[in-house]
Amino acid sequence: MMLHLSLQDNQEPLYVQIYQQIKQQIRNGTLPENYQLPSKRQLAAQMHISVNTVSAAYSQLVSEGFLTAKPQKGFFVCHLDELIQKETAEEKPKQSVSTAPSLLVDFSINDVARDKFPFQAWRKAMNKCFNEYDPGLLTSTPPQGDYKLRQAIARYVYQARGVSCTAEQVIVGAGNDNLLQMLSYILDSSCTIGMENPVYHKAMHFFQRMGHRVESFPIDSHGLQVEPLEQYDNIAIYVTPSHQFPLGITMPVSRRIKLLNWTQEGSNRYIIEDDYDSEFRYNSRPVPALQSLDRNSRVIYLGTFSKSIAPSLRISYMVLPRPLLHQYQEQYLSFQSAVSRFEQEVLHEFIISGHFETHLNKMRKLYRTRGQELIQALAVFGDAIQISGEGAGLYLTVQLKNGLSETEMCQKAEKNGVKVYPISPYFNGEVPEEHQSKVLLGFGALTENQMQLGVSLLYKAWM
Amino acid sequence: MMLHLSLQDNQEPLYVQIYQQIKQQIRNGTLPENYQLPSKRQLAAQMHISVNTVSAAYSQLVSEGFLTAKPQKGFFVCHLDELIQKETAEEKPKQSVSTAPSLLVDFSINDVARDKFPFQAWRKAMNKCFNEYDPGLLTSTPPQGDYKLRQAIARYVYQARGVSCTAEQVIVGAGNDNLLQMLSYILDSSCTIGMENPVYHKAMHFFQRMGHRVESFPIDSHGLQVEPLEQYDNIAIYVTPSHQFPLGITMPVSRRIKLLNWTQEGSNRYIIEDDYDSEFRYNSRPVPALQSLDRNSRVIYLGTFSKSIAPSLRISYMVLPRPLLHQYQEQYLSFQSAVSRFEQEVLHEFIISGHFETHLNKMRKLYRTRGQELIQALAVFGDAIQISGEGAGLYLTVQLKNGLSETEMCQKAEKNGVKVYPISPYFNGEVPEEHQSKVLLGFGALTENQMQLGVSLLYKAWM
Repeated sequence: MMLHLSLQDNQEPLYVQIYQQIKQQIRNGTLPENYQLPSKRQLAAQMHISVNTVSAAYSQLVSEGFLTAKPQKGFFVCHLDELIQKETAEEKPKQSVSTAPSLLVDFSINDVARDKFPFQAWRKAMNKCFNEYDPGLLTSTPPQGDYKLRQAIARYVYQARGVSCTAEQVIVGAGNDNLLQMLSYILDSSCTIGMENPVYHKAMHFFQRMGHRVESFPIDSHGLQVEPLEQYDNIAIYVTPSHQFPLGITMPVSRRIKLLNWTQEGSNRYIIEDDYDSEFRYNSRPVPALQSLDRNSRVIYLGTFSKSIAPSLRISYMVLPRPLLHQYQEQYLSFQSAVSRFEQEVLHEFIISGHFETHLNKMRKLYRTRGQELIQALAVFGDAIQISGEGAGLYLTVQLKNGLSETEMCQKAEKNGVKVYPISPYFNGEVPEEHQSKVLLGFGALTENQMQLGVSLLYKAWM
Repeated sequence: MMLHLSLQDNQEPLYVQIYQQIKQQIRNGTLPENYQLPSKRQLAAQMHISVNTVSAAYSQLVSEGFLTAKPQKGFFVCHLDELIQKETAEEKPKQSVSTAPSLLVDFSINDVARDKFPFQAWRKAMNKCFNEYDPGLLTSTPPQGDYKLRQAIARYVYQARGVSCTAEQVIVGAGNDNLLQMLSYILDSSCTIGMENPVYHKAMHFFQRMGHRVESFPIDSHGLQVEPLEQYDNIAIYVTPSHQFPLGITMPVSRRIKLLNWTQEGSNRYIIEDDYDSEFRYNSRPVPALQSLDRNSRVIYLGTFSKSIAPSLRISYMVLPRPLLHQYQEQYLSFQSAVSRFEQEVLHEFIISGHFETHLNKMRKLYRTRGQELIQALAVFGDAIQISGEGAGLYLTVQLKNGLSETEMCQKAEKNGVKVYPISPYFNGEVPEEHQSKVLLGFGALTENQMQLGVSLLYKAWM
């Protein structure tokens, strides 16, 4: 009936330490079922502590079902089912079994420069917001999002992208999927959704599952073509004008105006502008957001903090034109926000303290440099490749012109320890000839050395 | 060209203070458009600081577009659009204009004992998890949720509710809506959803919007009736057996077994068990979860941390039976988790450190006491009321038998400064006679004094 416990000063109260260590030993099997523990008096003497301390620990363990107290006999370990052990032993995270050589360089298109994350500033914001005396901290999150955060977002999108709106029009969501779900409610399932081809395919599947008719529309070198849209009414067109995903095309102002005018030539025509990586534009004169040119309340604007802060933070936002705001309020006020209130407050603090702007400016410089470094490294291919999409974002679109197919490009790269990303999954139907042999190379998380290594391995693989 | 700045020691670096204060003054209009700032040298002399410090602040302001530098002239405030002022001036959070007397006691059914939140323990978990050297912290959240958290949830639901599962079967979601969305995908829209009547009405609307046929089924004093289900196949029945919402009925084991057997007498029959407040059961022998009795993998189990931790934390979970797990993985791995990775890690830490169990035990005691106190206070009504749902959860269902209608009960209460919650919105169709004149009184956030005040006001209002 000897127990091995190690109690320390300056930590938890002694009874908590005893409680935790015994619980741990029961859980990991050190103390088996029906094991009799030392009496309170014995353990107190052994550890040179008071009987009351032991008593408090034992009571807690009894109340939680780890120990049972048998009158006149003492304390015994309860039966805890095998499941716990079984699970710990059998269940491990699935790892993809691969016979490929180990990955040396991953040109991931979703990763960011994580080592440059402003840990200090974020921690400061967290500590400021985690405030016992804030009566709102633990109450239900408002469906549309924290009002202060929405104000900060309204200011930010105006300054950064010229998007003109008030906090009332901003809706905070837990990532793109969550926003699209709300949007599907707001637009009603009778509304057709038009998609660029190629497109962010998850959005397409999502709208289909929500019962919308979904139509694909072709793009040319200026982005989405407007003529094919002309016969459609009661439709919302999902576009990525700043940096077409995945081709990287920037829609010029002329096409933007054409698209905006199209909304006026029919009924119930809307544009969903997904400005997913607009923070990172490297031209001296960035093209303004479609929303900023819209005079008729026809553009729904989507943005995210996944690229500008971190993909692990699930906060995104949507700016609704006023006519749809009413529909939102009718439909959605009975729903709950999917975003933690605390994280909304932290993000608000991070923005209003100026740290977000500072971080963005640093990252814009860093990513511009990284993009240029990647382009320079790729110069080794000479005319054998063609690069597009370099004006914005965290990835390049690279076309190889020596006859290798996209699949061969990806496979040969992988054999050489490099991961690149195919674009064919984003096409609805066949991949047009001019977009064959294209892959995406993300550079957000890579240093110059890693990119150079990656490109030299790609050269070996492809040439 | 005089600037009013106040610099402090022991704070941000001086240049940051200057930068922030000037930015603030530009934003709030103190420094108007085209205003010329003092030269670097002047400001440095005025503030007794180095020219380099001023230079760093001005450069930052120029790079962010607040100032413009005109060669040979100096620094001037840029044009910032009116929107910012307009918005700050015009937009305020909407407040419901009410002529009712001010609210004295709110018997809210969603609030928890916020003042008992374990701030210290949660802060400790946050500080431990916010770790610069954790390579996973900023990477994309796994779609199914953090594996360690899922392990901790699997252990917890087994210990607390007898729910037998492995981490592989657990899916973490951002609240009930988010889980139901996934479930709708997994079950496919061809699957009918059966609902108790009355029911958590948001779930009903949600499934309807996702394209499911939704059927309402009657309940009796033992909960959902099984006979009316017999003719249905390809159906999932949404039930709240531990504490029927909103009537508070606990389904006895006999009915549970009947319901489980029903799943075996037809094809593709599932049960969705929403165990929304199961942590707080006050009977000495709690009825086990339906899932724990299920031998045929027919129960989908839903739980949440909204009641047990706080409604502002948007984390919930679902335990899928193995046959549906495959469908989930097929369908959903292309989607992203809606829950912040950091908060998942904090919650995991909070659970495995034992603080969650401790908190639950404290809260269970507290809520049991509060429930009893409310029942005692309500004794003043004598036979005029009938209470149900007292065996679990954070609310009582109260029926008044002096002829007042539910609407009158709510209105008279409100006139006396008390908020109580009607149950009629949860009925699909007409409210049966035996459920008329019923309201919900939540007690999670109320002290004994508040409850006594509330009940005495209700007595005045109703009797």
